[in-house]
Amino acid sequence: MKVAGVLNILGKLLLLLSLMLLTPVPFSIYYHDGMISSFVFSSILGLLMGTGLVALFPPDNDLGFKDGFAIVAFSWLIIALLGALPYRISGAIPSYVDAFFESMSGFTTTGSTILSDIEVLPRSMLFWRAMTHWLGGMGIIVLTLAILPFLGIGGMQLFQAEVPGPTKDRLTPRIQDTARILWSVYLLMTIVETLLLMLGGVDFFNALTHSFATLATGGFSTFNSSIAHYDSTYIHLVIIVFMFLAGANFSLHFRALGGNLRAYWEDEEFRLYACIVLVSTIAIFMVNAGAVIYKDNLLNLRDSLFQVVSIMTTTGFGTADFDLWPPFAKMLLVTLMFVGGCAGSTGGGIKVVRCLLFFKYARSQLKRLVHPRQVETIKMGNMKVPQDVMIGILSFFAIYIAVFIGASLAVTAMGVDIVTGPTAVVATLNNIGPGLHLVGPSRNFGHLPSMAKLVLIFCMLAGRLELYTVAILFTPEFWKMTRKPKFRWSAKK
Amino acid sequence: MKVAGVLNILGKLLLLLSLMLLTPVPFSIYYHDGMISSFVFSSILGLLMGTGLVALFPPDNDLGFKDGFAIVAFSWLIIALLGALPYRISGAIPSYVDAFFESMSGFTTTGSTILSDIEVLPRSMLFWRAMTHWLGGMGIIVLTLAILPFLGIGGMQLFQAEVPGPTKDRLTPRIQDTARILWSVYLLMTIVETLLLMLGGVDFFNALTHSFATLATGGFSTFNSSIAHYDSTYIHLVIIVFMFLAGANFSLHFRALGGNLRAYWEDEEFRLYACIVLVSTIAIFMVNAGAVIYKDNLLNLRDSLFQVVSIMTTTGFGTADFDLWPPFAKMLLVTLMFVGGCAGSTGGGIKVVRCLLFFKYARSQLKRLVHPRQVETIKMGNMKVPQDVMIGILSFFAIYIAVFIGASLAVTAMGVDIVTGPTAVVATLNNIGPGLHLVGPSRNFGHLPSMAKLVLIFCMLAGRLELYTVAILFTPEFWKMTRKPKFRWSAKK
Repeated sequence: MKVAGVLNILGKLLLLLSLMLLTPVPFSIYYHDGMISSFVFSSILGLLMGTGLVALFPPDNDLGFKDGFAIVAFSWLIIALLGALPYRISGAIPSYVDAFFESMSGFTTTGSTILSDIEVLPRSMLFWRAMTHWLGGMGIIVLTLAILPFLGIGGMQLFQAEVPGPTKDRLTPRIQDTARILWSVYLLMTIVETLLLMLGGVDFFNALTHSFATLATGGFSTFNSSIAHYDSTYIHLVIIVFMFLAGANFSLHFRALGGNLRAYWEDEEFRLYACIVLVSTIAIFMVNAGAVIYKDNLLNLRDSLFQVVSIMTTTGFGTADFDLWPPFAKMLLVTLMFVGGCAGSTGGGIKVVRCLLFFKYARSQLKRLVHPRQVETIKMGNMKVPQDVMIGILSFFAIYIAVFIGASLAVTAMGVDIVTGPTAVVATLNNIGPGLHLVGPSRNFGHLPSMAKLVLIFCMLAGRLELYTVAILFTPEFWKMTRKPKFRWSAKK
Repeated sequence: MKVAGVLNILGKLLLLLSLMLLTPVPFSIYYHDGMISSFVFSSILGLLMGTGLVALFPPDNDLGFKDGFAIVAFSWLIIALLGALPYRISGAIPSYVDAFFESMSGFTTTGSTILSDIEVLPRSMLFWRAMTHWLGGMGIIVLTLAILPFLGIGGMQLFQAEVPGPTKDRLTPRIQDTARILWSVYLLMTIVETLLLMLGGVDFFNALTHSFATLATGGFSTFNSSIAHYDSTYIHLVIIVFMFLAGANFSLHFRALGGNLRAYWEDEEFRLYACIVLVSTIAIFMVNAGAVIYKDNLLNLRDSLFQVVSIMTTTGFGTADFDLWPPFAKMLLVTLMFVGGCAGSTGGGIKVVRCLLFFKYARSQLKRLVHPRQVETIKMGNMKVPQDVMIGILSFFAIYIAVFIGASLAVTAMGVDIVTGPTAVVATLNNIGPGLHLVGPSRNFGHLPSMAKLVLIFCMLAGRLELYTVAILFTPEFWKMTRKPKFRWSAKK
């Protein structure tokens, strides 16, 4: 690994975040909430650290595969560390571990919170919370992929390490263009959702922050009661539609915007994604109707659809307390938590395409048992799935299970009970938000021991970076042959 | 599939079970419990059905791969159906579904029960319960592998489909010898445990039935309080040792009996198995000591060791209510439930060797990400693991997850709550016995809806037959080109 080159990039990312830390300032001025100094001070701190790193370590135009992994994993870490400062400095969140948790939960678009009362937070702080979602949403790295090349790097390996899920196709051969295209789609959708919410009577501030949280499939709301705050079918529908879109592959949206609306239906992953949402909604609607949970069928349908989409896309917005629904409805929702969104979306979880290929693989192996001499190929649409992709998916499951068990053991070792602990791990590892029991939808993560919070922060990061990027840092092979960092003044030798 | 040939074998198996159904008769005579007619009547019914099948369908010496799978899956089913009759006929278990559940739980060595009071059962019925464990223990099919050849079949494919876990080596090239050898080891160990228990003051009946349940890693006790009935460290230790041995590969015991004691330590799976037991016991002992669960350290150590071995080998015997232990201890025990025993043992679960290879695989893939050009081979001991075995293990996990999710959804759809339902599935799919909450160690499965019981019966069967054998029956490929059965009188054409 080329430590100097990596540190140089991380420094530049800190500089970028320093700029973003100033975005809440206008809101603070407008709402007179007295938070200006917290943001400016955090920004200056980021500026100093960033400048320091860039000044000390020379850029390296020869960064390789390993460096790409290191940049992805560590950039998320330092950005969450810096992004936590405003919470801590302002005193909005007195403990730094808690502030770090909230910040990582934002940047990883998880949406788990340590706050018991969200509404007491100053408006500019609520905006920053939503902003961390938005920046994290498309992936800080995909975001910066459009900028990194100007900083002196262009590397396909970064895209491979970053884009959520196994990418099936590339929009354009050049990575900078790709990032810029995805970025524009993301921006456009945010604007459209904000406008549509305002049409429904939501004020600009709440329309914007909720659009940030929706498109990022994050789940931070500005209200304690989340989306249930609005009792408007129109608003619920707008959010359902945009959660659903945010959980789909953004390259499909790009193609649709280019006029090719059939792209959606031609995509096997999207078809399965839509089918799962449809079938699950009908199933939950029916058991809820059978158990007479709702007197109004339309309300039942609206809430069933909202929860299915919110959970499956790993957004975590709430309109109903599904803990009161029949066991089958809850079990189905828990299953959807693991499935997650599509590859190339902002959703977390295992991803629809991975589940699809996993079971296609199992099926092909069963067929092989019946006809041992027949060679089975696994297909997606009309394409043959390469052996490499299949192997990558299968080992993803192995790492997933290992992280899940390890983290659950660690959290329960800190005294967290056996329902709260593992479901907190599920909620963070899949970047969903709320878990069950003591971290359920009506509770928060604030009461957990600090060490348990650090484990969950690790889960958010590992889940968001598709496990590999983080898991690879734990192999001795990765750290072998790491060059000592060259400082700028020794670089000319 | 050659239906006639398969039905002929199934008929012969029924005849064999008819004989076994007479084994409780001496106990019924000795204890004067009036159960003779129930067993004799069941035996006659089996005799009639068996004779009918053998008379109608001619044997087929040309049975293939698919037929092997069909025989394995269906033989277990019909044997459990017939073995349930004495419970039902005697009125000991009034509902046939309940009797079927108890019988399948016995033959699959699961040990889940629908009985709330075990001790009211007549002695001969308790003996039959233990006998179903013992027969199922080594696998009715491994048992009958020593007999099947005399019936007109000898097929390696059966052994492949049956022996629990991916077999790493074969004892002898000839399958009949293998089965006979394993059978003798099993018998010898049963005799030794019975004698050792009697030395500790246990009467013959209870020594024998508990040995049956131990060697089969079943878990049916003749006491409501399970092994906690005996407050003797000697008796607990004997059972711990034999549970541990029953959870290890029986081919190692055979080699050890032949004088090669080093065989144990030379086996990588056994080393890991022993290490997991050791480390888990120490960990649980320490958290229990930290939480001051026991006043006596020795009692804590004894109970910790007992529970670790009982759960990991999927026996399910109890000496302590671990529901009262700290969360970490419970979480660790739940993890061990999934790991299970070694391949080639009577234990259930995923099996140690599968877990080992699964994580070796994930590690090799991470290494490959760092050094993309380096070819990684996965080794067990000094042997390279063939690609086929690796693929089989990976698809095992896919089928395992599919069955787990499907069964959990089905059980919760019948109104079972979200803790009881999935843990009942875990307890039956891994052939352990008790689950949590309403099917916890101090409860039973009796109160569940009949449909849920049928789903759990399916789980026991699928888990015991290593999933493949059952899953393959659900592929259309398996049923294609099934020949219509030829009856004996049309066979001469």
